[in-house]
Amino acid sequence: MVEVENYLLENRKLKIIQRKDMFNFSLDSVLLSHFVFISKKNSKPIVDFGTNNGAIPLILSTLTKGKILGIEIQKEAVDLAQKNIELNNLTNQVEIVFQDIKDFVNEYPDKVGTVVCNPPFFKVGERSNLNENEYLQIARHEIKINLEQIIECASKILDNNGRFAMIHRPDRLVEIIEWMLHYKIEPKRLQLVYPKVGKDANMVLIEGRYQGNKGGLKIETPIYAHNDDGSYSDQVKAMFLGGDSNEDL
Amino acid sequence: MVEVENYLLENRKLKIIQRKDMFNFSLDSVLLSHFVFISKKNSKPIVDFGTNNGAIPLILSTLTKGKILGIEIQKEAVDLAQKNIELNNLTNQVEIVFQDIKDFVNEYPDKVGTVVCNPPFFKVGERSNLNENEYLQIARHEIKINLEQIIECASKILDNNGRFAMIHRPDRLVEIIEWMLHYKIEPKRLQLVYPKVGKDANMVLIEGRYQGNKGGLKIETPIYAHNDDGSYSDQVKAMFLGGDSNEDL
Repeated sequence: MVEVENYLLENRKLKIIQRKDMFNFSLDSVLLSHFVFISKKNSKPIVDFGTNNGAIPLILSTLTKGKILGIEIQKEAVDLAQKNIELNNLTNQVEIVFQDIKDFVNEYPDKVGTVVCNPPFFKVGERSNLNENEYLQIARHEIKINLEQIIECASKILDNNGRFAMIHRPDRLVEIIEWMLHYKIEPKRLQLVYPKVGKDANMVLIEGRYQGNKGGLKIETPIYAHNDDGSYSDQVKAMFLGGDSNEDL
Repeated sequence: MVEVENYLLENRKLKIIQRKDMFNFSLDSVLLSHFVFISKKNSKPIVDFGTNNGAIPLILSTLTKGKILGIEIQKEAVDLAQKNIELNNLTNQVEIVFQDIKDFVNEYPDKVGTVVCNPPFFKVGERSNLNENEYLQIARHEIKINLEQIIECASKILDNNGRFAMIHRPDRLVEIIEWMLHYKIEPKRLQLVYPKVGKDANMVLIEGRYQGNKGGLKIETPIYAHNDDGSYSDQVKAMFLGGDSNEDL
């Protein structure tokens, strides 16, 4: 077992331990954490579906004082997430739950205000890589849960008008919208992420509201991840350093 | 009746007559004409639903030698479109049809390769303007045809794998995707138009294929319509001057 200590996100003073053989916290988590609307006032919990090593709860903890739950099905990832929460003295705010998301939403006693999810991007068998161990396969492929189930689970646990926010690949966007509508989560905000100027988008950020009114989607100004020379854009650098989140006051 | 002669689109040597009291050809038509994939080889007709003064067929005539039909329900607009076609010596390539789109798709004897539509953007009663005359109301509001009917009509007349391309407002995008899926037109390409850098999108361009395989949406590099000083961006200026269309070879 190889543990790597990272001191990313310096302005936030967050420490994140990762394992080289497991899914590693990346740009996706940073983008999603900065995209989702987080209300400082909202006392309803925020839930991260498939939290892995807890990166999203860690970043969100710098943006709200509200309760955050990270749900994770892999025991080794839960242990790592728990260690990260302790290392950052966040045990009062963040709770890591070792459970299948599908069971969690059936057993959790309350409704929540927000669900975020950086899901497995690939269908089973799609872009599989023989070098992937089981940890990585579960994090990258829809083995334990698929897109429909994630959205169904969010709809089961969200309060009316509660927010569901997700990052995914553009080629799944139509399917995401289809399932969101099916499970009564009305898409309200969309933001595209382009690897650099002049290229097709490689990620989409989408947020919807459970039982929200029909229509009214906003498509926000795009994000370019990299400059022409491959370095992170100023937009993204600001997120890594810890800027403001989207906040509805 | 006021007629205005425009010599826009200079490189193309197109002449467009418009009436000040009617809907005027604008950026929307130019963006849509440049967005839709036009194959030089495709011998199946292209149909423009709600062609008004014929601006889209005129622009498309510079990008393909294929047959183009413009369907229009308003007699005065048909007369203007007919005059524009004659003025540009395009009577052999472009045909203006004075008919309700709903009747046209039931009576036209063949399937077509492509349907384009710059539709009324507003629902009946939404953003209505007391100064609007009947011509403008019909062009801007869903009085004669609504979004669902446009997409249903396209599905009735398209060949398998035929393309449907539309420009619309972002707040209708979810509804557009919903109806496209309902009528078996799978969204394949999406491009956002932003008024300028840093703003939310104000137009979407979407293209789907009738009976196309599920999934695989591409989101193309965005278009910024204006520079910070309000002048047209180079991207848009190039379209007005007459650049290349998207062409699948």
